[in-house]
Amino acid sequence: MSYAGLMETIGQVNDLLNTQSILNWDARTMMPHGGHATRGKQLATLSVMTRDLLVSDKLRHQLDAAESEVAGKPAGAVERVMVEQVRAALDYHLAIPADLTRRRAELGSNGHAIWAKARAESDFSQFVPILEETVALNREMAEAIGYSEHPYDALMFRFEPGETVATLKPLFARLREALLPLVKAIAQKPEPRLDFLKRTYPVDKQHQFALKMAEKIGYDLNRGRLDTTLHPFEVSFTRNDVRITTRFNPTWMTASLFGALHEAGHGVYEQGVDPAYTRTPFATDLVGLYAVGGVSFGAHESQSRLWENHVGRARAFWEVNFAEAQAFYPEQLGDVSVEEFYRGINRVQPGLIRVEADELTYDFHVMLRTDIEAALIDGSLKVKDLPEAWNGKIKEYLGLDVPNDANGVLQDVHWSSGQIGTFCNYTIGNVMAGQLFAAASADATIAAGLASGNYDPLHAYMVENVHQHGRRYSRDELLVRATGRTLDPEPYIAHLTHKYSELYGL
Amino acid sequence: MSYAGLMETIGQVNDLLNTQSILNWDARTMMPHGGHATRGKQLATLSVMTRDLLVSDKLRHQLDAAESEVAGKPAGAVERVMVEQVRAALDYHLAIPADLTRRRAELGSNGHAIWAKARAESDFSQFVPILEETVALNREMAEAIGYSEHPYDALMFRFEPGETVATLKPLFARLREALLPLVKAIAQKPEPRLDFLKRTYPVDKQHQFALKMAEKIGYDLNRGRLDTTLHPFEVSFTRNDVRITTRFNPTWMTASLFGALHEAGHGVYEQGVDPAYTRTPFATDLVGLYAVGGVSFGAHESQSRLWENHVGRARAFWEVNFAEAQAFYPEQLGDVSVEEFYRGINRVQPGLIRVEADELTYDFHVMLRTDIEAALIDGSLKVKDLPEAWNGKIKEYLGLDVPNDANGVLQDVHWSSGQIGTFCNYTIGNVMAGQLFAAASADATIAAGLASGNYDPLHAYMVENVHQHGRRYSRDELLVRATGRTLDPEPYIAHLTHKYSELYGL
Repeated sequence: MSYAGLMETIGQVNDLLNTQSILNWDARTMMPHGGHATRGKQLATLSVMTRDLLVSDKLRHQLDAAESEVAGKPAGAVERVMVEQVRAALDYHLAIPADLTRRRAELGSNGHAIWAKARAESDFSQFVPILEETVALNREMAEAIGYSEHPYDALMFRFEPGETVATLKPLFARLREALLPLVKAIAQKPEPRLDFLKRTYPVDKQHQFALKMAEKIGYDLNRGRLDTTLHPFEVSFTRNDVRITTRFNPTWMTASLFGALHEAGHGVYEQGVDPAYTRTPFATDLVGLYAVGGVSFGAHESQSRLWENHVGRARAFWEVNFAEAQAFYPEQLGDVSVEEFYRGINRVQPGLIRVEADELTYDFHVMLRTDIEAALIDGSLKVKDLPEAWNGKIKEYLGLDVPNDANGVLQDVHWSSGQIGTFCNYTIGNVMAGQLFAAASADATIAAGLASGNYDPLHAYMVENVHQHGRRYSRDELLVRATGRTLDPEPYIAHLTHKYSELYGL
Repeated sequence: MSYAGLMETIGQVNDLLNTQSILNWDARTMMPHGGHATRGKQLATLSVMTRDLLVSDKLRHQLDAAESEVAGKPAGAVERVMVEQVRAALDYHLAIPADLTRRRAELGSNGHAIWAKARAESDFSQFVPILEETVALNREMAEAIGYSEHPYDALMFRFEPGETVATLKPLFARLREALLPLVKAIAQKPEPRLDFLKRTYPVDKQHQFALKMAEKIGYDLNRGRLDTTLHPFEVSFTRNDVRITTRFNPTWMTASLFGALHEAGHGVYEQGVDPAYTRTPFATDLVGLYAVGGVSFGAHESQSRLWENHVGRARAFWEVNFAEAQAFYPEQLGDVSVEEFYRGINRVQPGLIRVEADELTYDFHVMLRTDIEAALIDGSLKVKDLPEAWNGKIKEYLGLDVPNDANGVLQDVHWSSGQIGTFCNYTIGNVMAGQLFAAASADATIAAGLASGNYDPLHAYMVENVHQHGRRYSRDELLVRATGRTLDPEPYIAHLTHKYSELYGL
């Protein structure tokens, strides 16, 4: 009874978090402009009520009783893991003083306007005072949460539990060592054909085609829908309602196509969580206070990257599906060969902007930011010295000079919200995608499916090994169960090396 | 401080109620089919938390202290009225045993499927047991809430405070006396031209035209949007975000047009509430637990009927706007005169179905249901005798034989949800619309605007006399302030008599 009571309260927490997701989705897709004036209040009220319920006396009593009730179960039993996760989340939230949470929320609500103005005027100095405050507050946050080695570890915990500065260091070193020579070698090679990418693709056709490709990889429209936003995203309100968005640029069709495949990759993860876990801790991030079935931001990104890059940007995919693309876009793609298309969508070009980066150079943008954040938090880098550090790394990794702050240190929105600790997930996701894809495609049925355009076997593998478990196993537990190893960059490096050596004749 | 604290708690109640409205809107317009499986849980959690907050110790202490704080203010002062409304709502909810609320909610969730099957099979006997339970439970509800004369008064209180069986009796008698002869006389007259109404009107054009007409009467799209649903409705999430829907039938354009005008009429009411009342009791129905600025269901209906019928179905409206309609629909309306259009959209034809009824016969459907509900609640009519009573009244009022229960006593969804007491509002709205329109159009500027297609003066009158006040004044207080009288059917009767005598040459 105590366990059942606890689960019902967690179910209510999940309902409140899903409700906030619905309100946020609506605000970004449907809400008339005037609605902004009061939507923030509605979200703030829900947010306060959610936290209040999670730390309520009622929940604490239910948790105490549930712990006794499940004590006899074997370690790893579903009920025990659920109760342990609730306890860990409660401890996490109780460790952070309410005053600190309030101050960071205030900082976040003020920071955006200051950042936006600084970026518009490309003037980092305007952003310095509030960024210094953000660093100080996050350092305070780290001390409250606690850590063994590095304060940045405490900040990453919310997004990528278990990841630390110590584990990232060798990972990043290995990626740099393996990928920098590729980037430098490709810079000497001629460009592929690109003209057809910039032709005019009608937006309504792009919508249909993107949806068709998303369905092909297993995205279920009976439990989903695709809308338009400036910045693509995926959000779920339980596994029964998982929505994606993409952006439609009439003269850059690949943005909507790969945006939709990426978000559909996130989407199939949420749609694939075991229905028995609905409204439980295994479908609720009780630390980050977000209703999600994916076990970490990196694990989530592994699924979007897998379907976008390992499937959607593969030669095999277009060998099977290019005729369909040509039928959709006869005028735009009629004079293009599948090989030209494949090379065009995989062109490597080092650039200044993270969100525009290609598959090969993306990780350098991530490593740069993660290293800088860790150095800001441990005090070895001062905020005022940030542009110099940033620009030096861009030169070192990508050979580029940063012409101004807007295209450098001011480009990302993240810090303006008071948030530090959430960049490494993108590279973790890439590495994990490489590892899972290598393991899956070693299976003959899956490989045959990829060659013939049947993505069901690969989808089924991901449901079996990743999606269905929700948040029951940690990211590394999932990896060990699926591949026999914890996070390992070698399959990802092998994939990139093989693909881009072949593409650019290295 | 206590008053401010109380207002902040009521603000949170308002946030939670608006959130429920957002979730309901989404479920009816955007949600993929699969989402139904968990949306109900999310709504149930929000509903429980809202009631818990309203009857919480925290709110009760704030209310006690606020009452002392505002005791020195003059009667009718905003702060005093707000506090009085919170106290009245708290008393209302505390009077109803939690067990009774739970039983009615259960009944409501079971009732729909039983009603739907009974209706599909046109077999009232299947619905009898649950309707008997519904009547018994609502009678119990009435006893808990309390009343002076008739138990049905207690049930109407939630929707139309102040209305009683005693006040409805003379109102209905006067309407019957005045309108029945009109209906009977028109039945002897020839039909107007109707062929053009059934032509094909493309749905995208209908959408544009409906929006254009809605904007014409003052519906603000910066704080609104129009979507498609089977059953049109209006819903607001504060005055800053007021959404409407309509239905689009390709061969019955007037459904979308008058549906949109009707819902836009509801919409401008909500958009016009004083911004200072946002998140306060004056924008929150704390008795019905619904975030709304309109002061009663009848008052709300007065605004939708006013813009739909008194403005949108008037000859003056089409004398000014018919050229625009023809420009939109040249093939469909090119051979139609404005007089033919006006006569077509105002055709009177007694029918069996309430939601398809015309302006003149609608009230008979309402009076029939209200009288029947009151008789069920006081026990003078037994559920098993309902079809006979229903069919007799339809024969008496409209001269029609009811061929089966599906087109008779089983047609409305209302009772299946466990709800009794919400029919009179439609007729109250008609009467109030007639009264307000007569008072407003006595003003020369407003009359000139109506004649020339400028609806701003009438809109401004409604904002001034109705919308801005939100729930500060009761329906009758609004009427007295605007027209010098409480609810009075004579202007409405005069409007109908004049309009339909002229139309049918009586």
